[in-house]
Amino acid sequence: MSQVRVHNLSVSLDGFGTGVDPTFDTPFGHAGQRLHEWMFATRFWHAMAGEPGGSGGVDNAFAERHGPGIGAEIMGRGKFDWRSGPWTDLGTEREWRGWWGPNPPFHTPVFVLTHHPRPSIEMEGGTVFHFINATPQESLDRAREAADGLDVRVGGGPSVVRDFLAAGLIDVLHVVQVPIMLGRGVRLWEGLEGIEERYDIEATSAPSGVTHLTFTRGQ
Amino acid sequence: MSQVRVHNLSVSLDGFGTGVDPTFDTPFGHAGQRLHEWMFATRFWHAMAGEPGGSGGVDNAFAERHGPGIGAEIMGRGKFDWRSGPWTDLGTEREWRGWWGPNPPFHTPVFVLTHHPRPSIEMEGGTVFHFINATPQESLDRAREAADGLDVRVGGGPSVVRDFLAAGLIDVLHVVQVPIMLGRGVRLWEGLEGIEERYDIEATSAPSGVTHLTFTRGQ
Repeated sequence: MSQVRVHNLSVSLDGFGTGVDPTFDTPFGHAGQRLHEWMFATRFWHAMAGEPGGSGGVDNAFAERHGPGIGAEIMGRGKFDWRSGPWTDLGTEREWRGWWGPNPPFHTPVFVLTHHPRPSIEMEGGTVFHFINATPQESLDRAREAADGLDVRVGGGPSVVRDFLAAGLIDVLHVVQVPIMLGRGVRLWEGLEGIEERYDIEATSAPSGVTHLTFTRGQ
Repeated sequence: MSQVRVHNLSVSLDGFGTGVDPTFDTPFGHAGQRLHEWMFATRFWHAMAGEPGGSGGVDNAFAERHGPGIGAEIMGRGKFDWRSGPWTDLGTEREWRGWWGPNPPFHTPVFVLTHHPRPSIEMEGGTVFHFINATPQESLDRAREAADGLDVRVGGGPSVVRDFLAAGLIDVLHVVQVPIMLGRGVRLWEGLEGIEERYDIEATSAPSGVTHLTFTRGQ
């Protein structure tokens, strides 16, 4: 059976996966870029941006696990767009097609969870955005079929990952704990009492200051 | 100037320093002993219990920092007693004198924060419990005077440590993150946005599975 995986999900020490009041200029709200600076420094990120260099240590080793073996992604509307509610720009020149330009870094079908379905968008490079109003299990069934035997990545944000964890649908979870205190935002760890019983958990602190937490479902 | 230190404060991955519904048999509520198993395994703990053996690695190295240089402790009523509210057994044979027997492991003055002051108790081995109704700053002034130039330890529980952090009174904070998910309880990390700016933070993951977080106030 293919696996359901989460990679590179960054949270603050107080457990927030994103801040409050996201805007076009600050998609993570008051968190700014602080949750992801560890990733920007890696070879993985540099390569995705078409740039040379980047660190090759433990942060990079974890970050690079993001891609291989993935056949589809599921993400929340909040990852695709900084706004919520009905789409107001469909069919206009300013129609929002995500943050990632004409050739997004997914290269697979991507299922965007939203209460406001809209027509699918085929991008360059193999990414196709599908917009579906579905439960975690329903969206996973769709993504599994599209992934054609490969794994499914749950791409975030934190509330989507929390919902999938609560529904018992995640096999591999990689959380990166960043030494900042956001105080406000969307908590990843809410209502998940006892989930450690279903997972082998390892912690790996990195020279950059972050700690990589890996949850691997027991067989 | 003497320092204000916190040691061996254990929290779950979701940030709870203790569970709900403490009783005489389960002072940490539904958390049971799970937050402190890492410590019970150390040479530090074995020595305190008068037993041989115990691990001598990174967990022990951090745990042992608890004692040296401390001249007084401040703790919450919730650490001294599983109950809250007025003391109902004063002067009786069952008068509560803490969890630690006739010779508690503090060997210094200990200031117990409570809305219900009572006469001080002098124990064997140098521990004297004082019961005071005071703000963090007021209690620290009292403890500093009693510590006579040595450091003051803020011994917990989590809400007391949080109050001292919010008041800017902690110099050294050692938190141990345990890979369990409590779901409910008393959160350590609440309303502390931005405190990382005042501290150097290091994370050290240990073979036992816990991660030691140290906050050291910048000079």
